Formats: sequence, structure tokens, C-alpha cells
Amino acid sequence: MQTIAEIFSQGEEIVSGQTVDTNAAWLSQKLVQMGFVVKRHSAVGDNLTDLKNLLQDISLRADLCICTGGLGPTIDDLTAQAVAESFSKPLQLDTVALEQITQYFSYRKREMVDSNRKQAFFPQGALRIDNEWGTAPGFSVQHNRCWFVFVPGVPYEMKHMFDAHIAKQLTQRFSVQPGQLITLRSVGIGEADLQEKLNTTALPDSVQLSFRAAVDEVQTKLIFLADAEQELVRKTVNQLAENIGDYIFAIDGLDGHQGDLVEVISKLMQQQKYNLSIQETASQGLMAAKCIAQSWLISSVYKQSLQQQTENQPIAEYKDIALGIAQNIQQQDGTDLVLVQLYAGNAEQFQQKELSFILFSLLLTPAGVVHSQRSIVGSKARKQNQAAIYSLDLLRRFLQNKTL
Amino acid sequence: MQTIAEIFSQGEEIVSGQTVDTNAAWLSQKLVQMGFVVKRHSAVGDNLTDLKNLLQDISLRADLCICTGGLGPTIDDLTAQAVAESFSKPLQLDTVALEQITQYFSYRKREMVDSNRKQAFFPQGALRIDNEWGTAPGFSVQHNRCWFVFVPGVPYEMKHMFDAHIAKQLTQRFSVQPGQLITLRSVGIGEADLQEKLNTTALPDSVQLSFRAAVDEVQTKLIFLADAEQELVRKTVNQLAENIGDYIFAIDGLDGHQGDLVEVISKLMQQQKYNLSIQETASQGLMAAKCIAQSWLISSVYKQSLQQQTENQPIAEYKDIALGIAQNIQQQDGTDLVLVQLYAGNAEQFQQKELSFILFSLLLTPAGVVHSQRSIVGSKARKQNQAAIYSLDLLRRFLQNKTL
Repeated sequence: MQTIAEIFSQGEEIVSGQTVDTNAAWLSQKLVQMGFVVKRHSAVGDNLTDLKNLLQDISLRADLCICTGGLGPTIDDLTAQAVAESFSKPLQLDTVALEQITQYFSYRKREMVDSNRKQAFFPQGALRIDNEWGTAPGFSVQHNRCWFVFVPGVPYEMKHMFDAHIAKQLTQRFSVQPGQLITLRSVGIGEADLQEKLNTTALPDSVQLSFRAAVDEVQTKLIFLADAEQELVRKTVNQLAENIGDYIFAIDGLDGHQGDLVEVISKLMQQQKYNLSIQETASQGLMAAKCIAQSWLISSVYKQSLQQQTENQPIAEYKDIALGIAQNIQQQDGTDLVLVQLYAGNAEQFQQKELSFILFSLLLTPAGVVHSQRSIVGSKARKQNQAAIYSLDLLRRFLQNKTL
Repeated sequence: MQTIAEIFSQGEEIVSGQTVDTNAAWLSQKLVQMGFVVKRHSAVGDNLTDLKNLLQDISLRADLCICTGGLGPTIDDLTAQAVAESFSKPLQLDTVALEQITQYFSYRKREMVDSNRKQAFFPQGALRIDNEWGTAPGFSVQHNRCWFVFVPGVPYEMKHMFDAHIAKQLTQRFSVQPGQLITLRSVGIGEADLQEKLNTTALPDSVQLSFRAAVDEVQTKLIFLADAEQELVRKTVNQLAENIGDYIFAIDGLDGHQGDLVEVISKLMQQQKYNLSIQETASQGLMAAKCIAQSWLISSVYKQSLQQQTENQPIAEYKDIALGIAQNIQQQDGTDLVLVQLYAGNAEQFQQKELSFILFSLLLTPAGVVHSQRSIVGSKARKQNQAAIYSLDLLRRFLQNKTL
């Protein structure tokens, strides 16, 4: 028996194309992992009739619908009203929700305006879903065949609410069997190359393979059926990981959750009791920014003049230049590790997306020096981000004792 | 008279969340700019019944539907068959399309397999849309009220086909008039407060008002009908901008495009021939990172020790402390402007999302010193981002001669 789910996104900014609806894909992945069959995504704007008709249609054909958006304080946020009218469940004040909203504003020492009161009214019989990450609480309600869950459209709030409250509610309410999701997380290798490396491996029928390119990493995703044997799962994952090699910085889902590149680095820095200073060029502060609130990061410096001094030097001399800078910083800060980033390119090469440059990273450690060299191409935002990731990956490989 | 459009995306990879549907937003923007009112996006997987039902529904409620995906050569590509069955228009071989597909393969010296022949069959009465960028041609066909346009789901092919063939076809077929979109872009004020400030202004019928909270700003969006008088447009925009006040950093769509906060700052820095050094604490490199590749940013420094030295000082002394730091940096770098960021909070206050701290920003300028104070709360990523935006906004207000 399939349990049919749909995703419904509300917002003028979505139907008019100002915002790409990333919520729908995120929620679908979560639901598929839990064992639901997602059959449809719909998005409509802030039009009461359209909203009411769509809610009614969905209530007759799906078992579950996650609805995002339309819960804000402004007059164009119509979801609760549409639910009330479409399902004949009049809006009622939820005093706990009102209390939460009032507190949200008093914590922030901001004045609560009347329109925020609106966010504490839910359709009769609805269950409140707490939102510790913003002003608008969500709610869930049954109508006809379908269990509807309403959450804000702000991805940050929506994702936290799903993980903290909604996922549990759904597993209690529906008898779905989750597959086992295992994610091989890699840096420094593209989707096509990954696929090429995995082509030779025959996969068992019980596993589904997909790839996902995120901003900071590429993920190889394996979903095993709920009844797949653990020995087979482990063998398959290890085989694929071996084929991909040291590009992999973490495997999630096999022995817990290892996290993203900075989380992996952070755990290793703490275990190995290291601290770090950084000299940035191409990433211009973004490397430090990615390590936000990590106590092992002692300092980070960006100086435009450093780039101007080095960009015309032959790349063969980058190692000596970077080592000199690293030793200076180590003397000043007294840190265990110093990461220095240089790049062989001028302003035009940085700005123009079809031009590339060579990124050089050097890490000074108590055991000596390691370094790496990578070619980077793309828009300036992409070049900046790749530079931050590649330099951090040199640190990760050192901490994990991987080949450099 | 509104001309109603919908977007329909087909593909298992979309409903299961493996792919974010960026086509729908891209197409919607194009259609809205042309004067269509986009009312709904729908996505379904590769299921014949779901496809047929959805096509039938759309044919009764929209004037135009752009459909992406499902035109490939494999058995799970069912769009043409669904159209044929749902609209009772049997599939017929288009010999020109077959010739194009055959040529595509012979040019590339690749073998054409039987399943590619399938792509040359269109529903009776359909018009072929040439695809010079891939194997699958598109087609368009009328059913009930709606003109359907079918294109491949590969963004690269779809976009080229829309710009080269479809846009022209649509302007010939529909008498739509493009509206005027004006965006008031603000920082430091929430959606609800914005609405409160605008409540008193009576808006003309020819304008539609909406709000959008992005990561770095809140946008107030006005869409005027194509025939709105320019004097009225200007008067309305100016009235709303005055009510919102100095939170507004840019107005897009009235006299061209002013861009985001960093773009606005960058233009002013260049006009006023200033350069800048930054000392970051709470934003930890993110302020510099947001100013990527701007030649007026001379240096940015983050030092953990600075926070440790200042977090226990009374906030009344922050101005003197920050000024001392700024003067030191100015002596070292010789820059016109120095921006120093401090915050009154410890590591716990930074990490815990329900705890807040006071952000203090100071800007040393040739005309003296300006400074600002803001309370910041939320996850550590949000605190970091807000800190970067609020400090940069102090610079923006100085450059624009706004109240501080």
C-alpha cells in the first residue's frame, strides 16, 4: 500500500518566478526517505479562490500534504483563512501561540504589531506546530482523506520545524517504512567524474543511486530498501567509497552522521587539539566565515596588497612565498597550524567567469608543510567559494591523514 | 482582461526531490515580464493517469501552459502519449522532425536507436518547435481554452527554445501587455513593521503590493498595470518610500536597476573615491566575503582575541575602544574609511539561538565618526549574517547621507 504525499507551496514570489521553490525538493527528499510516495507538487499565488480549490482537490487524492508559505503577518498571507473557508473550520485564537509570538517580540525588544496577532489564529481542531525559529507557528489538520501540515515558507524555519517536530509526528501517524539513506560526501570531484568512477561497480537491486551537487560538496546518495541486509549495505558502501577515494570527507547514514566539511574538520581539530590562523586571498574572508564560532580559529587576515605582490611571481616560487608568510603568522599568533592561500591570477581573471586561475594552498604544521594546487573557473562568487572549500580541504586531508 | 498561464513540469526526479525545478521559476519570470498572469505551477512524475488528468484540468482553467520534461527517448517519457490520449489527438509521424533527429545523430557520428524515432511523433494538429540544441523537438497544441507548449526539461535546451522560438509565437498569439515591477529594497526592518508603515497609504487600483523577506534584505514589491500613468507610478513609489524612510537602500525599476546592498555601496564608494579597511568580530570574515572582488576593500581582519578583550567591557566604552582600533588601522593601512565591529556577548550568547547580543559598529571617516547599535538574535549563522549586514548598512547610510 502506497502512502501518497503531495507538496503545496504558496506565494506570489513563487508563481511569478522571483523565487525558486527549493522547499518542495527538500521536503520531497525527506518524505521519500521516510517511505512516502510523493506524487505531485503544486504552487499557487496569494489568491483565496485558487488556494481553496487546490486544498479541496488535494484533500480528495492524497494521504499527506505539506504546505509551505502564506503564514506571515501581512494581508497577502491567506493560508489559514483559505483552510478555514475550504474545510469549514472557522479560525480560533490559540492562546499558547499568541503567548509565543508575544514572547518572540519581547525577547527581541521589538514592538509587536496587530498584524502579528493574526498568526495565532488557527482553523478549528488544528494542532499547533511550535516554531522556535521565527514568528509564525505552523499547524496540522485532517480533511477528507488528507492530513495537512502547514509551515512557513522561510526555508530556515521550515527545515528546523520539519526536523524537530513534524518528522516524528508523521512516523507516529503513518505506517511507512523508511529506506536507509547513505550519503557519500565529497569535495574536489564533479558529478560526471563521480559517475565514471562508479560505472564499473555492479549495484544490488535493493539500492537506488543518485547524485546531488550542492554549493560546497557533491553527494552520492544511496537509498537501500527497508529490508536490505546490513552486511550487503556495508559491503556496497565500502566498495563505492573505495572507488571514489580520498575525495570523500564523510559518510553519513552508515555509522551515524558525520556532517559537512567544516563539521568534520572541527571534530578533528578538537580531537587533535590544534588551533589555526588563516591568510586568505581568493576566498576574501569566506574561509573564516564558514568556520563561524569555532574556538580553534584564532585569526584570519585578508589584505589586497598581498595579492598585488604575488600575482606576477612564477608559480614555482609560491611554496617559498607562502611558507614565509605562514612562519610570520605563526610567530605572531603562536598557532599550531597556519593555512596560507595564494592565487596566480589578476583582477580580470577573477571577475570573468570563463577565465580560470591556479589556487595555491599551503598548510604549516608541527610535522612540516603540505600544499595543494587547483585550477578554478566560474563566476566570481563561485571562484571565491571554491577557493575557500579547496583550501579547507587541504586542512581536512592533513587531519584525516589522506593523500594530498 | 487577465491572460492566465500555468507551468507544468514532468519528471520523477522532480517530485522525488532529487532535482530542484528551476525551469518553473525561469519560465514564470519570462511570462510575467511579457504580461501573463502566472497562477499555478504543477509537477507530477512519470505516471500516465496523473499526466492525463492534470492536462485535462489545466485545459479548462488556463489560457496558456508551458510544459517541460517527458519528451526524452526512454519508456518513462510519456508526455506525447498522455497528450494524445487526454486530448483525443492520435500520434502522427512528423517527417521533418524525424529528419532533424536523424541528422543530429549523424552529425555527432553517434548511432540513432529506435527509441529516438518515438521523439518524432506528435499529437494530431500539433505545431513542431525546432530544437537546435538537443535531440527532442517540442510541439504546441490547443485544447479547450488552453494553448499548450511542450519543451524538453533540460534547462539549456528549454531556455534556448523559449528565447528563439516560443516567445515570438506567444506575442503573436496573445495580446498581453507587460506590467511595470518596482522593488523597494530595505535593510534593518521586518516585514510586519514595513506593512505597518505602509498601512496609512491608500494605493491606486492599478498597483499590486507584496513583500519578500530574503536573507540579506526585505523587499516591498509593486506591480503596476501596463497602462498605469507614469506620473501616478512615480508619485505612489515616492510616497511609499517616504513612509518607509532610511531603511530603503535602493529602488529598482523606476530609474533603472540599483542592485543589492553591496552593489549600492560599491557604486557610492567609487563615486566618492573612498577605500576601506575592516575589523570584524561577529561576522567573522563574512563582511569582507560579501564585498568579493571590490577594489575599494583594502583589508579585513578577524582576531578571536579582540572579542575576548572587549566582551566584558561596559558598552558605554565601546565607542572609545572601537575608535582606538580604527585609528590604529588607519595609520597602518592609510585608508579613508575604517569600519570596526564589536559585540557585547560571549561564546554562549553567540551559539544559542534564543540568546541575543548587542552589535556595535563604528565608522571612522574623513568627516568624523559615526556609529550604530543593534540587538541581534537567532542561530549563529543568522547572527553572523545580520552582523555583516548591519555593519555594512552603517557604511551605506554614511555614503548616502542618511540618518544614523
